[in-house]
Amino acid sequence: MHPFSQDSSASLAALGEIKIIERIRCALGNVAPATPRGMGDDCAVLPAHESGSRLVTTDSLIYGKHFDANVSPEDAGKKLIRRNVSDIAAMGGSPSDAVLAFVMSENVSALWLDCFLDGIAEACRESGIELSGGDVAATPCDNFFSATLALTGFAEKPLLRTGAQEGDFLFVTGTLGGSILRKHFAFCPRIEEGLFLASQPDGIIRSCIDVTDGLQKDHAALLPPGTHAEFFYDAIPISPDVACLAEAESAGKIPTGCAAGTPLQHAFCDGEDYELLFAVAREHADSLERAWKERFPKVQLSRIAQIVAGNGNPELKQKLSDAQAYRHF
Amino acid sequence: MHPFSQDSSASLAALGEIKIIERIRCALGNVAPATPRGMGDDCAVLPAHESGSRLVTTDSLIYGKHFDANVSPEDAGKKLIRRNVSDIAAMGGSPSDAVLAFVMSENVSALWLDCFLDGIAEACRESGIELSGGDVAATPCDNFFSATLALTGFAEKPLLRTGAQEGDFLFVTGTLGGSILRKHFAFCPRIEEGLFLASQPDGIIRSCIDVTDGLQKDHAALLPPGTHAEFFYDAIPISPDVACLAEAESAGKIPTGCAAGTPLQHAFCDGEDYELLFAVAREHADSLERAWKERFPKVQLSRIAQIVAGNGNPELKQKLSDAQAYRHF
Repeated sequence: MHPFSQDSSASLAALGEIKIIERIRCALGNVAPATPRGMGDDCAVLPAHESGSRLVTTDSLIYGKHFDANVSPEDAGKKLIRRNVSDIAAMGGSPSDAVLAFVMSENVSALWLDCFLDGIAEACRESGIELSGGDVAATPCDNFFSATLALTGFAEKPLLRTGAQEGDFLFVTGTLGGSILRKHFAFCPRIEEGLFLASQPDGIIRSCIDVTDGLQKDHAALLPPGTHAEFFYDAIPISPDVACLAEAESAGKIPTGCAAGTPLQHAFCDGEDYELLFAVAREHADSLERAWKERFPKVQLSRIAQIVAGNGNPELKQKLSDAQAYRHF
Repeated sequence: MHPFSQDSSASLAALGEIKIIERIRCALGNVAPATPRGMGDDCAVLPAHESGSRLVTTDSLIYGKHFDANVSPEDAGKKLIRRNVSDIAAMGGSPSDAVLAFVMSENVSALWLDCFLDGIAEACRESGIELSGGDVAATPCDNFFSATLALTGFAEKPLLRTGAQEGDFLFVTGTLGGSILRKHFAFCPRIEEGLFLASQPDGIIRSCIDVTDGLQKDHAALLPPGTHAEFFYDAIPISPDVACLAEAESAGKIPTGCAAGTPLQHAFCDGEDYELLFAVAREHADSLERAWKERFPKVQLSRIAQIVAGNGNPELKQKLSDAQAYRHF
């Protein structure tokens, strides 16, 4: 479905602000609580949290950048919620509530927006998120749609990116690469897994990140200065989608926005995997693996690297030559 | 200063994501705390709050809609912060921390963005706000700039819009109308005043809102069903800017986006006043006025209406015929 309507009677311009907000409230259903907890006042009024830390993250979803008319509006809406939830998961927190700001041209189709909101509502329900407020603004540009979510969560003991040490092993959940075929619109944020990691006794899980820009770029955020990751290349969990991509490539049908590459290049560089990548203290790696299998028997966990002294990793550079991580600008 | 650069070496396209974020961090200075409280992890990690309520609000600022090239980038940045702070003020809360999401075309001028961030930082400092995180995303559109702030605050006892009763008096701070000349980029959110109102014993201040869309539209949000406001027209605090507008009008120089009208129409309909409008229980109105004069001797407070039974206000409709409140869509 195309987000923009040629028929002005079917676009936002015909509705006006009050009816647009009514439609948003209606489409969100029980995901949007009543005022004062939800829409309808100058601010949303939410309960304070008595212990631990408050987590806050924000991300935008833009037509023409993060999705196009080939993507269903429901999938686009779900993605906006889930990519923010994945950030909360990577901190070992639980998502709580969010505010949603739309910037839209007047020719956005009202029907398309309804479907986008259905996706928003479904993804909020699956993660227990309340949409407590938002903003709707028109832009004078034509054919423009962006939605920005600011998501709050709570964590008793947040998992940071910093904290890994030389000797730690790096683990990753699930599989990597080829997300452009399917996964980047169909992933499930690793909330339960993040909570499990955050609940481990101190000194076991040292740091954590979610893989969004690709393993190559994102693993570097976990490395303390003067170290690099020595990868166990045979242990990299390459997604079955990578093989499908390779078939498409050999048939000369490379999806838009996807560079050709070896399976390892896809696993390291495609990005949008939304898996958890975390560092575990060496002496606790075996027991963590056992505890994981018991708690998440169906979720693959791979020990993919060890943090070692020394800068740079010439072998990795060689294996990934010509491959590119995702660039935002 | 124009937000967009013809010279691509002076635009965001030449910087790339990492340098853009470095510049943002640098321009924000001590308003952007270090990780984990600030930028640099999947989420910002903030202290939980042990009592009262958490307030959350979000608003966007869009080039071509909320400001244009005639407005300095510093003023535009300040406005984005202050209009969100005004929402916290209207709830009787204190602002705490915010996340900021940019959606920008690649031809945004890097120098213009620096100046915009200077305004953001200055307004954050004046309100004690920490910018704890954000997002930067490029849009394929040309000449596009929007910034969306999600602001958190706390209130021991939030002032809601609902709660006013028949017989209550409506009060407004400051003066109204003509904001397009100056005030809508130079207002100071009424945080201290809101905190004072929220700290009154129960049953005195019944409800509160900030005047953004104009007194005509915004006062209606305070009215319980089956009531209307009987205005004391002589007591409406008309801004001196309205007289300046009238002069401009009689000289045939009406500012863009401003409709001609009587002084009362300007006071009721111009909007963007960012004053507090609140309902006070009848029997406490006199003592509240005295307490106000003692606490805020320099801040005008006007008793402008009483809530009375019956729907509609034909006299108001007649006085404001042809005038329009601000429309978002």
